[in-house]
Amino acid sequence: GSDMSTSINLAVIPGDGIGQEVVAQGLKVLTAVLPQDVKLETKEYDLGAQRWHRTGETLPDAELEALKHHDAILLGAIGDPSVPSGVLERGLLLKLRFAFDHFINLRPSKLFPNTATPLAGRPEIDFVVVREGTEGPYTGNGGSLRTGTPAEVATEVSVNTAYGVERVVRDAYERANARPRKKLTLVHKNNVLVYAGHMWKNIFDRVGREYPEVTTDYLHVDAATIFFVTQPERFDVIVTDNLFGDILTDLAAAVTGGIGLAASGNINPTGAFPSMFEPVHGSAPDIAGTGKADPTATILSVALLLRHLGYEEQAVRIEEAVSADLAERDGTFRSTDAIGDALAARVAG
Amino acid sequence: GSDMSTSINLAVIPGDGIGQEVVAQGLKVLTAVLPQDVKLETKEYDLGAQRWHRTGETLPDAELEALKHHDAILLGAIGDPSVPSGVLERGLLLKLRFAFDHFINLRPSKLFPNTATPLAGRPEIDFVVVREGTEGPYTGNGGSLRTGTPAEVATEVSVNTAYGVERVVRDAYERANARPRKKLTLVHKNNVLVYAGHMWKNIFDRVGREYPEVTTDYLHVDAATIFFVTQPERFDVIVTDNLFGDILTDLAAAVTGGIGLAASGNINPTGAFPSMFEPVHGSAPDIAGTGKADPTATILSVALLLRHLGYEEQAVRIEEAVSADLAERDGTFRSTDAIGDALAARVAG
Ligand SMILES: CC(C)[C@H](C(=O)O)[C@@H](O)C(=O)O
Ligand SMILES: CC(C)[C@H](C(=O)O)[C@@H](O)C(=O)O
Repeated sequence: GSDMSTSINLAVIPGDGIGQEVVAQGLKVLTAVLPQDVKLETKEYDLGAQRWHRTGETLPDAELEALKHHDAILLGAIGDPSVPSGVLERGLLLKLRFAFDHFINLRPSKLFPNTATPLAGRPEIDFVVVREGTEGPYTGNGGSLRTGTPAEVATEVSVNTAYGVERVVRDAYERANARPRKKLTLVHKNNVLVYAGHMWKNIFDRVGREYPEVTTDYLHVDAATIFFVTQPERFDVIVTDNLFGDILTDLAAAVTGGIGLAASGNINPTGAFPSMFEPVHGSAPDIAGTGKADPTATILSVALLLRHLGYEEQAVRIEEAVSADLAERDGTFRSTDAIGDALAARVAG
Repeated sequence: GSDMSTSINLAVIPGDGIGQEVVAQGLKVLTAVLPQDVKLETKEYDLGAQRWHRTGETLPDAELEALKHHDAILLGAIGDPSVPSGVLERGLLLKLRFAFDHFINLRPSKLFPNTATPLAGRPEIDFVVVREGTEGPYTGNGGSLRTGTPAEVATEVSVNTAYGVERVVRDAYERANARPRKKLTLVHKNNVLVYAGHMWKNIFDRVGREYPEVTTDYLHVDAATIFFVTQPERFDVIVTDNLFGDILTDLAAAVTGGIGLAASGNINPTGAFPSMFEPVHGSAPDIAGTGKADPTATILSVALLLRHLGYEEQAVRIEEAVSADLAERDGTFRSTDAIGDALAARVAG
């Protein structure tokens, strides 16, 4: 993370569906937790489905440029069924991750007390997935030939570089080394994707020699999904490729109480560009405006944001507040706003 | 499937680890269930880790040619930690799937009565994954440049053709149409893998117009993993790409009582080449020779083999025997052999 500063200049992209609602609660808690002498400035960016319908734009250069000058970005959710699949994902969400070189896609998974899990026996779950964010099958490298005809060929190229793999692997070792269990698992599919898979494995092994205290293992992605439901307690830190990380972190969210609690950070640890924090869930247009959206994932994303900016104490305060709040939930319905209020009250002071 | 014949000329590849043991039980049950007048001929092929250590060969042309002349192939398991990752997978398992154009990789998932599942509440699970078997990221198309250096670039190309997608999608519609619920779900990631994803979706929609009775939906692969653990009962037939199918079917096996029960068929429905049937599990060298391997997945794969060859009645008999056997299991240890004996006794007569 960067050094703690006495002001935070935050870009806010509420986005679509429930994005606006959950971001409002995130900001509420952020304001409540920050020390008095830290000045919080926010600037809202109107990006997402409505903007695209109105102007055809997803992320114009001027806005990309303006976003660069913020300390961090808080994003709600992007996407709407009225927009063709891929337009906003590639043109906005992934464009931001790539333009700002967010090579660490950080996704902690923890089964909080008193939280419903679909798993029998309530295993102890507390791991972090360090997902690569700028390479793999997400590069947009590919194409289609004779599109729409019976002779169509469509390709998707997973591009992986030693440069890109080493930096995320190294980051994951650092994180594992800083945790009590000091365990790091590489997930790939190197028995089939032998070119990329072997490069990942070789770099993983080589960098590992610099971290003698970290215990390592390797799992194929298919086997990893099995352990996510049968033995999730075996995981501490996981490092993996962009697509495998996408799949595994949704599964992780599902087994740890649902996508309503899953936070994420799209991080550039060098500080060259602002990092971006967002809940893992989507825009859920079916419940937008009903007050049913759980803002907890966004609020936990704010904790990751604070940690990244050097406000470790405040980050912990939010995480403890969420934990305490969940422990007291009794199944009674609480609105988006009520959950935000409760958490803001807990972190204040 | 092909027409029922009065002889079956079966190739058997026991392979590595527990492969030999489980295949022996599969053949025991096959022999017991076949009508007296059907002549079963089997020929064993010595392929796998030991062969590779001895000769450096994975699947020589002569054996590939010989395998072509069988009605079907029964495979146990391939792989051993002593063989570098990818050698046997690409050189033997995938080589067979590609050489024999096994474009349907059929993987039923059913939660049998009395079977342990990691999911709380024991949802009703009974779906089939139709995984594409000859395209996608499995083609081996890719490479690595400046291998082993800090400037390495490694690529993996997912190759998808309208020809390949349409035939598997059509097969999946046929299967969905023949089931009581008549529901088909396409799983892909068309918001990111836009070239391949849009082709899959377009073909899925177009072919669907020929099956007005089949209800369809679409899920991104990450969302699909969530539903696998929170609402698996929503699935009937799933059609998906080679890699997504690999991941989803291991997860499906995990939630339906484990990889010890998951059967699969690598099918070429045209009959141009023999189809191959194998349990989804691996060679499990840690328990090889201990009698602990569960042969049920292999025996259920034999049922798929029989169905493919036109022996529907016998296939059902095996499936019912497995169901009845599982219903009576009380947790007492039974050896590989004992399970095979019990199932052979049930299907006989
Ligand atoms: C919306 C989509 C582009 C995105 C991804 O695939 O990364 C989402 O699923 C996520 O995990 O953040
Ligand atoms: C062993 C490996 C090549 C194979 C695959 O990835 O298809 C296996 O995981 C499977 O699912 O049959």
